[in-house]
Amino acid sequence: MNTAELHELGQQLRVDSVRAAAAAGSGHPTSSMSAADLMAVLLARHLRYDFDRPDHPGNDRFVLSKGHASPLLYAAYKAAGAIDDEELLSFRTLGSRLEGHPTPQRLPWVETATGSLGQGLPVGVGIALAGKRLEHTGYRVWVLCGDSEMAEGSVWEAAEHAGYEHLDNLIVLVDVNRLGQRGPTRHGHDLDAYARRFRAFDWHTVEIDGHDTDAIDRAMSEAVSTVGQPTAIIARTLKGKGVHDTEDREGLHGKPLKNADEAIEELGGVRDLRVRVHEPPPARPAHPAGTGTVTLPRWDTGEQVATRDAYGRALAALGTARGDVVVLDGEVGDSTRSELFAKEHPDRFFECYIAEQQMIAAAVGFAARGWVPYASTFAAFLTRAHDFIRMASVSGSGLNLNGSHAGVAIGQDGPSQMGLEDLAMLRAVHGSTVLYPCDANQTARLVATTAELDGIRYLRTSRGATPVIYGPDEEFPVGGSKVLRAGDHDRLTVVAAGITLHEALVAADALSAEGIPVRVVDLYSVQPVDRATLHRAAEDTGCLLTVEDHRAEGGLGDAVSQAFGDGRPVPRLVRLAVRTMPGSATPAEQLHAAGIDAESIAATARLLVEQAVVP
Amino acid sequence: MNTAELHELGQQLRVDSVRAAAAAGSGHPTSSMSAADLMAVLLARHLRYDFDRPDHPGNDRFVLSKGHASPLLYAAYKAAGAIDDEELLSFRTLGSRLEGHPTPQRLPWVETATGSLGQGLPVGVGIALAGKRLEHTGYRVWVLCGDSEMAEGSVWEAAEHAGYEHLDNLIVLVDVNRLGQRGPTRHGHDLDAYARRFRAFDWHTVEIDGHDTDAIDRAMSEAVSTVGQPTAIIARTLKGKGVHDTEDREGLHGKPLKNADEAIEELGGVRDLRVRVHEPPPARPAHPAGTGTVTLPRWDTGEQVATRDAYGRALAALGTARGDVVVLDGEVGDSTRSELFAKEHPDRFFECYIAEQQMIAAAVGFAARGWVPYASTFAAFLTRAHDFIRMASVSGSGLNLNGSHAGVAIGQDGPSQMGLEDLAMLRAVHGSTVLYPCDANQTARLVATTAELDGIRYLRTSRGATPVIYGPDEEFPVGGSKVLRAGDHDRLTVVAAGITLHEALVAADALSAEGIPVRVVDLYSVQPVDRATLHRAAEDTGCLLTVEDHRAEGGLGDAVSQAFGDGRPVPRLVRLAVRTMPGSATPAEQLHAAGIDAESIAATARLLVEQAVVP
Repeated sequence: MNTAELHELGQQLRVDSVRAAAAAGSGHPTSSMSAADLMAVLLARHLRYDFDRPDHPGNDRFVLSKGHASPLLYAAYKAAGAIDDEELLSFRTLGSRLEGHPTPQRLPWVETATGSLGQGLPVGVGIALAGKRLEHTGYRVWVLCGDSEMAEGSVWEAAEHAGYEHLDNLIVLVDVNRLGQRGPTRHGHDLDAYARRFRAFDWHTVEIDGHDTDAIDRAMSEAVSTVGQPTAIIARTLKGKGVHDTEDREGLHGKPLKNADEAIEELGGVRDLRVRVHEPPPARPAHPAGTGTVTLPRWDTGEQVATRDAYGRALAALGTARGDVVVLDGEVGDSTRSELFAKEHPDRFFECYIAEQQMIAAAVGFAARGWVPYASTFAAFLTRAHDFIRMASVSGSGLNLNGSHAGVAIGQDGPSQMGLEDLAMLRAVHGSTVLYPCDANQTARLVATTAELDGIRYLRTSRGATPVIYGPDEEFPVGGSKVLRAGDHDRLTVVAAGITLHEALVAADALSAEGIPVRVVDLYSVQPVDRATLHRAAEDTGCLLTVEDHRAEGGLGDAVSQAFGDGRPVPRLVRLAVRTMPGSATPAEQLHAAGIDAESIAATARLLVEQAVVP
Repeated sequence: MNTAELHELGQQLRVDSVRAAAAAGSGHPTSSMSAADLMAVLLARHLRYDFDRPDHPGNDRFVLSKGHASPLLYAAYKAAGAIDDEELLSFRTLGSRLEGHPTPQRLPWVETATGSLGQGLPVGVGIALAGKRLEHTGYRVWVLCGDSEMAEGSVWEAAEHAGYEHLDNLIVLVDVNRLGQRGPTRHGHDLDAYARRFRAFDWHTVEIDGHDTDAIDRAMSEAVSTVGQPTAIIARTLKGKGVHDTEDREGLHGKPLKNADEAIEELGGVRDLRVRVHEPPPARPAHPAGTGTVTLPRWDTGEQVATRDAYGRALAALGTARGDVVVLDGEVGDSTRSELFAKEHPDRFFECYIAEQQMIAAAVGFAARGWVPYASTFAAFLTRAHDFIRMASVSGSGLNLNGSHAGVAIGQDGPSQMGLEDLAMLRAVHGSTVLYPCDANQTARLVATTAELDGIRYLRTSRGATPVIYGPDEEFPVGGSKVLRAGDHDRLTVVAAGITLHEALVAADALSAEGIPVRVVDLYSVQPVDRATLHRAAEDTGCLLTVEDHRAEGGLGDAVSQAFGDGRPVPRLVRLAVRTMPGSATPAEQLHAAGIDAESIAATARLLVEQAVVP
């Protein structure tokens, strides 16, 4: 395509953006119009992509970080022949693949769900890292960002990561249209404000007029030929470009154009240009083979082992068996024990430093390329990446997350380091699996199991050593549980997991010696939960006492309660959980102060039995 | 103090850090030792602070962003005469004020809880903003950061905010000791890597040897006299400085020194230097008076009003009544309606642009200075700031948070914009209040009420208009509820809030017409929850059907379940909630697809009654 044709293509993308939003009665045409020329040149000149084979390993990758500009993306799909005009006009309607914000769950050409700003570049960094460090196929990653989202720290966390890793296969296009949702951005059309920030993070930068197709073309060529650095193309654009009534005007964010027909006419009317996108170069899938058989570490019952140690050792073993497993950590690998993987498989270990959002985003990027990522940090610090985990679930991304240092049981470090809200956070993530093992063999088994699952899988591990209570050949299906104490005359059932499971066992044995038999269930699979076992415990004992090293809201207790959410009779449910703000103290003091140690469990059970609360 | 004395003071701070960690058997002496000279010069020469009057409005503010270096902080308190040696050695023990990471809940001189890295500077920006824009008392804010935490995007989000706001009362000291937890940082001793990043965000920077007390002194003087820009002092230091066996060595993070006695000897032994810290200049508290009486907006029943509109109008009215109310927004004030406050009180409105972490951190900073902050964004995007909200609760910070655009009811924009996990996230925050109003008058009342509460108060608002069902004089106490349909023969109780409350009313009226009377409870106070009303409903009807525009985990259903967590008999609990991944569709289509609209409620109620699940 020559310059005139590129201009025409840009106009078509604008027209189709206006049409899609008009048909929907909502959407973001003005944010699409500013970036239309960038998209036109990318599509016609630089992108290498086979729309018939979105899984082609040589395909470039495009991420629309400013996901609200989805009309532009869909208009580009139409221009590339991937969708037809009828589908374009189904935008934002029930059942359409063309959602308000793009998601890979519906469209095969979308790498990652966007719509929460400042996430596209971080995920793009992950994809570029996979390309550079693992796949060596030479694909490029193009990310289109808005200028408003440059205020998100996650953008600079990603810039830091990409600059440090010399990701010259990553190119970000910043659509500086100077207008955010409610008015001007901080830096308006000051392109250098963005450029000098990117340069400070060791990027190559180019500043251009984002409506000059020749300049765009030159900048993209320069970016493609830049070695050793990612490139940021900072483009001065006008929001609503091409239509007098919308161009560079405030108050028109996220609204269909008032006079769409006139605007389309001003833009030169409807066109049906078809772009022949460059073919990707030949490439082969890059996942190295492993041994195929997972030889997990084994521990003898009675050994004292921290579940985080078991996690690290199992992860290393899994990495030997499977070549597609990659591990990320937030500069605490000596604590989470992911360093054990790093030592054995340094090429598949990614140190993300203290940057949890970027760690999760990079994991999403790896998952998008078919790798099986395990990302670890303290459970408490996964809250830093909550929005990224949420969006990963919108993407349908397959991530293994590990949160170590769960609960008050960490001891002296105090509440800032204690994972006390992680179960609530992860349970509420759509389609998630939440596991909380209590011993080393159980942990190892679950590490291997989660590699096979879909969606977000969360494994919660503990800092301190706990006794190994299961043999190395015991199986732990997801959605299962283990009944560790049971008799015909159990007066109630204690349901626990992780650190509190051991407290529950001590309490149960003490109670039994006093003539109060209680059942104990190890609910290692917090989500999905073993309804059948809980139902039977309810029928047999009438009362469930849950004990968790976590806040009372959203964790184990609520998971148990939900097992009775189908209208069946509900047993009495009593919850022991962390209801205070802990300070510094030893692990044992912490468990006692929180009322979740063996003594507290036994005291509560006695009270329930003696007060005849339990029949 | 002269140079020699400053050196001695630095050595004392090291010795006391080593002693505190040795006594505790845990803690971070090496991270304290690197920054000891910075702290010595600050304390003896530049800080203006009255330790007897931590609430003195003229006090400078000090934030230890690298909170794990708490031994250094406590050693400084001792040197300033604020604590004695006995208390110093109580470090990290049960009941001690000297926790592993400092928190204002225990110590009056701590501005904000730290320990989750990358949060001290963001909160410091908030305090500096309060000083500059509201209080005009001239205090300076000193923030001591580690180099590892520079990887957190939140640091650059804060740098951007501070640079843009020209906060020349803000000085950050970066302790570049080159070693993180598990090894070298990305940039080692490359001071310029940090300096050029800060400069790109429009900061003044000074690079120094962080063990040269004269250089530190000059740099601090330069920072203090810098106008129109915040200053970053980038200091080259050695971790474990002063002791041969620890200096600049890997593998010693977060551990007491092996040979503490020898180390203390090498550092010159125990000293008891006392620093006379400069007095703060006279200053007056700065909260302007308001009218004192809140004149809330009023709506007539039957009007159609979005609760987000009511929020904005009530906030503006509250701002008129109270001069201490400040409002922050994440560049979506036209959507959350906080713009209505901005229009009436522009001097107390803070546009944080699309930077939710910084918005919450700034709010924490304002709260630390006695202001009453209200921070708004989409409910979905509060997840971005989860770790900041968590840490705010560790601080005991008083924050009002507003999440708009709750649930699938927003319609076409799709899941990235839908707050579906916010109730779970906020309920699990320690000591939080969670409110979810269904109409305009209720919203307005709750906005005014939350100003008087402690801790984290969350108000969830909706995008679309809903009918006003309460009169403007109705009262809505926190922990209350409203029974809107009730009779002697109710077959079950529908518990709803916000958008689903209206669906419940429609369903109840339809069911009633069919001869199935049901009770309807408006559970606007999700936390704390109205146990008494729920207990009575359980006794009267035997079955509670909860309906929420939120994930099934951690929200309204779990809140209701917890009302029966004390061992009493539990009614049947059936939950309608969002269990799928929504796409784009109209609000009505969304509610129907999720199974939480009137039709779904009625169908579920019929099923329960007809199947005789309900007695």
